[in-house]
Amino acid sequence: LKEENFEIFREELLSFHPFDLAAAFIELDDPERYKVYNSLSPIELAKIFEHLDFELVPLYFEEMNTFYVASLLEAMNIDDCVDILNNIEEKKVLASYLSIMNKEIVKEIRGLLQYEEETAGSIMTTDFIEIPINLDVKQAMKKLVEDAVDAETIYTLYIVDENRKLMGIMSLRELILARAHETIGDLMNQKVVSVLASLDQEEVAHIMRDYDFLSVPVVDYQDHMLGIITIDDIVDVIDEEANEDYEKFAGVSDIEDLFESNPFKSAKQRLPWLIALLFLGMVISTLLNFFGDTLEAMVDLAFFIPVIAGMAGNTGTQSLAITIRGLASDDIESIKKLKYIMKEAVTGLIIGLVTSVIAFGLVMILKQDPVLALLVAIAILGSLIVANLAGTVTPLVMVKLNVDPAIASGPFIQTLNDLISNSIYLGLATWILNTYL
Amino acid sequence: LKEENFEIFREELLSFHPFDLAAAFIELDDPERYKVYNSLSPIELAKIFEHLDFELVPLYFEEMNTFYVASLLEAMNIDDCVDILNNIEEKKVLASYLSIMNKEIVKEIRGLLQYEEETAGSIMTTDFIEIPINLDVKQAMKKLVEDAVDAETIYTLYIVDENRKLMGIMSLRELILARAHETIGDLMNQKVVSVLASLDQEEVAHIMRDYDFLSVPVVDYQDHMLGIITIDDIVDVIDEEANEDYEKFAGVSDIEDLFESNPFKSAKQRLPWLIALLFLGMVISTLLNFFGDTLEAMVDLAFFIPVIAGMAGNTGTQSLAITIRGLASDDIESIKKLKYIMKEAVTGLIIGLVTSVIAFGLVMILKQDPVLALLVAIAILGSLIVANLAGTVTPLVMVKLNVDPAIASGPFIQTLNDLISNSIYLGLATWILNTYL
Repeated sequence: LKEENFEIFREELLSFHPFDLAAAFIELDDPERYKVYNSLSPIELAKIFEHLDFELVPLYFEEMNTFYVASLLEAMNIDDCVDILNNIEEKKVLASYLSIMNKEIVKEIRGLLQYEEETAGSIMTTDFIEIPINLDVKQAMKKLVEDAVDAETIYTLYIVDENRKLMGIMSLRELILARAHETIGDLMNQKVVSVLASLDQEEVAHIMRDYDFLSVPVVDYQDHMLGIITIDDIVDVIDEEANEDYEKFAGVSDIEDLFESNPFKSAKQRLPWLIALLFLGMVISTLLNFFGDTLEAMVDLAFFIPVIAGMAGNTGTQSLAITIRGLASDDIESIKKLKYIMKEAVTGLIIGLVTSVIAFGLVMILKQDPVLALLVAIAILGSLIVANLAGTVTPLVMVKLNVDPAIASGPFIQTLNDLISNSIYLGLATWILNTYL
Repeated sequence: LKEENFEIFREELLSFHPFDLAAAFIELDDPERYKVYNSLSPIELAKIFEHLDFELVPLYFEEMNTFYVASLLEAMNIDDCVDILNNIEEKKVLASYLSIMNKEIVKEIRGLLQYEEETAGSIMTTDFIEIPINLDVKQAMKKLVEDAVDAETIYTLYIVDENRKLMGIMSLRELILARAHETIGDLMNQKVVSVLASLDQEEVAHIMRDYDFLSVPVVDYQDHMLGIITIDDIVDVIDEEANEDYEKFAGVSDIEDLFESNPFKSAKQRLPWLIALLFLGMVISTLLNFFGDTLEAMVDLAFFIPVIAGMAGNTGTQSLAITIRGLASDDIESIKKLKYIMKEAVTGLIIGLVTSVIAFGLVMILKQDPVLALLVAIAILGSLIVANLAGTVTPLVMVKLNVDPAIASGPFIQTLNDLISNSIYLGLATWILNTYL
């Protein structure tokens, strides 16, 4: 970057892939970044900026001339442009960019800005190839070549009638292999899978994964074309959703961010969960308090509190993970839910029976006390059945109630199962001590 | 399916998307399946079978005539064909299919069968568009049209020299927009990102996600073209890997399978983990045993065992999840590991300090015993720092040692942290009781 000749520097830069340039760009210091702004046209920089973390981009914009920013935004894929504009917090700054951008593009941007986050509308692009149904193959190819420069993908053609209603689709491959005089309307595939702009992006991802689509059309209720979603954006959605599932599971928010941020920010994000769990944990302590007399009468009971709570927690974690993944991959459909819960109940019973027999043996070896061994075994059997069901049913109920299933996180299920298992164990012990001993 | 006229039945069937037909196919009973085999040509059925779970396909093959199977396999995408053949366990059956298939295709299949599972080689296809470097645009377009029927994608052209060495790539879009007389060698992009056949499929997925590729070339050490990997297969890889991360985290194996299987199979898969954890849990009980005198002297101590263990477990779960996701998304690179561990150590300290102060207050309210409150607070501080580091360091060490990081699962970290936290808590209590009280 010390090279003074701008032209050589530019050419060298542009020989790299935009993704690599974006990775290098974020490592630059201020003067180096200004040099990049001076060397590259807004159009060239736009390709690089498409690969940046969009939350950072508004900060870089502040370093640039407003006209440079406007040209850069115009040159970007419109879906990426909208994502970036969504990250600009100051309304005045946003307005200053929009006021000097091309009016046509601004109109499209305003249309896209209205869709809610994480919906099909929010990730679609309006730059697609639209072919009137009455064209023949030769005319269609001519229109495709004319529109190819701006379109995000040219590999699927969307066939529309005069009202922009989606009538069919056709791949570029089919177009290339067709004869010049054939009519598009006869060649096109009429069974089109399309999505509504309000559909959750995760559903869109499942559709594209299952059907092996490279792009999917987004339509309104009357089947008018609004835009398309391309596979590169869906790959990012799948990645994001996997992270979200993980966050739910681990009881943390914004896992990506946690990875990069400083320890104070990180602690601040993790503490609310931990403090909530501490209070819940203290409820368990208070509960154990009620069993103080029992524990004093039979101190050996205390030794097995952690193992029973631990086993309940582990079983609950397993069934929670299976259920959350099942929900994420659409394997659980509404009809089968009851069947699935029944299956998990039986699984819990089997796991509980096997584990409690082994636990009985181990306690006998450790303590040579058949009453204690039986108590531990029954407590494990009961806790595992309940814990397994808690891990299964909690996320299902959350989804049903439209509550954020983040509440059914691993730590929450663990702590809940601690409470259940200790109640069963010590309740049972108290009853036996009072009744028989 | 009651319709007797095969022709109408066929046409109706084929108007649906293969994915929908595949979903319907697995619900059919035996006579219905035989009817499908009789109605559809192997080529038509091949498109449907590409969307089935490949583990099930060999069972359906047993219901068909060997020649029908051979034609069906020939008509499939070669990468899917290889995946299915990999699932045929009986060598004799496999040989019987290969012996009557087209010799050219069998040769390619044998080449692909040699790659190890989960490598680039195992998911690539050999059906791609290869263009000699010396052709002009018009000749290249002619070759593309000739090869288009068999190719899995025609949207990226791979430019090779006379030895099939990869010299550059060009998109179909660029080809369409170029002038007829220009030479491919001048137009092509020479900076090509390619992968070796031995590369892990997860690495391939990251490359395709980061660079927004629709396909990536697979080469040998001398840059000769071996095949290409297309985005639809990568979407499946990303999904699979997310499941694998989940399995590690939850301490279960083959989470997809667990979702569908019967409770006995499910219990059988989950029990080994749970039994291992039961033994580990009993180690904790034995440890507590050593502190029997301490507990008898101060029964109140026992009430806080679960909350301390729980907090250590929760903190460890959080840092484990963050680290595993960081490893999965390549955010952790080798140089930054020490820095990352240091950051997590500081985070653990902050979390520990805040939580222990609150815990001190809560125990004071519950028990009005400053010694006990101080004991609980110090135990939480110490356990949280250690637990947080255990969740961070364990998966990093596993990866470093090339051990399957499945061992660093959530339940394992939980149980390990139970052990650590209880040792700190009761060890400290014993020392204070013996020294000061």
